[in-house]
Amino acid sequence: MTQPIGNETSIIGVDIGGTKVAAGLVDGNGKILLHARQPMVAAGEPEDALKAVTTAIDSLLSQLPAAQAKREFQGIGLCAPGPLDPQTGVVINPPNLPCWRNFPLAAKVADIYHLPVKLDNDANAAALAETRWGAARGFNYVFYTTIGTGIGTGIVFDRRIYHGHTGAAGEGGHMTIDFRGPICGCGKPGCIEAFAAGPAIAARARARLAAVHSSRSLMHDLVQGKLEDVTSETVGKAFASGDALAGDILHEIVGFLTVWLGNVVDLLDPDIIVMGGGVAAVLEKFFDEIRHGLPQWCVNPRASEIPLRMAHYGADAGIAGGAALCA
Amino acid sequence: MTQPIGNETSIIGVDIGGTKVAAGLVDGNGKILLHARQPMVAAGEPEDALKAVTTAIDSLLSQLPAAQAKREFQGIGLCAPGPLDPQTGVVINPPNLPCWRNFPLAAKVADIYHLPVKLDNDANAAALAETRWGAARGFNYVFYTTIGTGIGTGIVFDRRIYHGHTGAAGEGGHMTIDFRGPICGCGKPGCIEAFAAGPAIAARARARLAAVHSSRSLMHDLVQGKLEDVTSETVGKAFASGDALAGDILHEIVGFLTVWLGNVVDLLDPDIIVMGGGVAAVLEKFFDEIRHGLPQWCVNPRASEIPLRMAHYGADAGIAGGAALCA
Repeated sequence: MTQPIGNETSIIGVDIGGTKVAAGLVDGNGKILLHARQPMVAAGEPEDALKAVTTAIDSLLSQLPAAQAKREFQGIGLCAPGPLDPQTGVVINPPNLPCWRNFPLAAKVADIYHLPVKLDNDANAAALAETRWGAARGFNYVFYTTIGTGIGTGIVFDRRIYHGHTGAAGEGGHMTIDFRGPICGCGKPGCIEAFAAGPAIAARARARLAAVHSSRSLMHDLVQGKLEDVTSETVGKAFASGDALAGDILHEIVGFLTVWLGNVVDLLDPDIIVMGGGVAAVLEKFFDEIRHGLPQWCVNPRASEIPLRMAHYGADAGIAGGAALCA
Repeated sequence: MTQPIGNETSIIGVDIGGTKVAAGLVDGNGKILLHARQPMVAAGEPEDALKAVTTAIDSLLSQLPAAQAKREFQGIGLCAPGPLDPQTGVVINPPNLPCWRNFPLAAKVADIYHLPVKLDNDANAAALAETRWGAARGFNYVFYTTIGTGIGTGIVFDRRIYHGHTGAAGEGGHMTIDFRGPICGCGKPGCIEAFAAGPAIAARARARLAAVHSSRSLMHDLVQGKLEDVTSETVGKAFASGDALAGDILHEIVGFLTVWLGNVVDLLDPDIIVMGGGVAAVLEKFFDEIRHGLPQWCVNPRASEIPLRMAHYGADAGIAGGAALCA
């Protein structure tokens, strides 16, 4: 008989996004043992989108030895873009998942698999995974941010996600650092997301390249002169190869993030800040600069002592996050 | 025999400021039964400043019937400007109390009175008093702000002050809403305190009055043409009498506060916001405008439903706050 994979402390973590569903089997130490992926039908019928989720889970389960029963798992943890209600497990109306409006996702999945099911938003779940198993292990006042095409944040106190009154807490990416600043995708001016998420970095780079009429930047070569192809990764790559303009741009982004984190530190007094997402990887070389800059942007006397760490989970943040909800 | 005042659930609350110490006897329902005041020796020797505190307490106790013993009280709660350590009861180095540097105030007071003694910063303590007995009674996610010569804030979750990792949480007055904004007293640009505390309102009014070269504003008359005498109270009085320029200025202040509270709401998702302090009284007529403006400055879908209330405690916020620490 084949050896079971994982055991009764193993959890199924599911990361539901606008384009794909990723499921994983996660052990009690946060290690991801198996993966499965499925395209998402984000604009389809509610039940078709649910089917994408269950197909991903079934595909994961199909990798297990035939004799292994589902009841050997502790539960299924789902994470998805908000807004959603973590108390009731209902997806409210996420812009990236138009398939679901007030859809009782957790209850539907529980009905199918007869396992406990939890649901939370992706940044909250990832924050919890980092606290349980990752970069924030052992810390009690965790501020987590993921910087990619948007900026998500999650707050974990005493190993529990801080949800606030309605479950909408921890939307730090839409805090304004300049009320006269650029308009964010959310409609309000000067959110940190409008300054420092991937698209904002790319737009800044394109504008700067256009303004200097310069082909001397490596960024120009990396996109073969097609400035519309510049992304935040282009800026990161050029910086890694010593491009001065790319360095200037990232330095400006670091300045915006420092202002923002200063605000967060003064309000929350965290004992660690964890940064994940694609842009965080580009910025990792600047973490010390952010830390040393913090005291200029907050009154917390120990601001520069707060560790700033790269997230442990990269592309698997959602799977680990989902699993952490049930751990 | 004279009837005792208060009973074993009564508490001594002490508000220690840069110029005075105010002590009060507070009953178990947050009612202030007796008051005493004493000038503070903020720039003196540590023991002289301690003496000012004990003199205020002794003056309070002297108002009690002779037969009433100190052990009939639940404790002594002290509040003072920060930074201080609420865990150890040590005053660290408040700019307004240069008399004390790493001074173990709570322990000293406990030695003298043989009662339990608690210490916290004034905005945190006032936030707790509002939650226990005042405008935020029955709420679980309380954001409190006091707007006067500065802007203090306090956060109370589940009826406990949120202190963060080092006790420095809840310094919301120094959150930046414009990183290119005016320099705050704390040294950083664009703190909400630099936009909306009393001195900022007064400075804005003086600048506007000077710019328009106008004696048509009632503010001009209220200070008999001496613009240097304009305060936030002048603006409030003129507005109450229908002065258009005063209304314009307060409307701008309300805009800044709305941006700031939007940031707070997105991070904390409170179930109530309470505003106290002299400037809050001036702004009370604008509370609905702030509430209705919030959805433009945060992504929280229920932002406009969050009640915004005037603090219950006015000048007695510190006494009630101190008492709340021991309740």
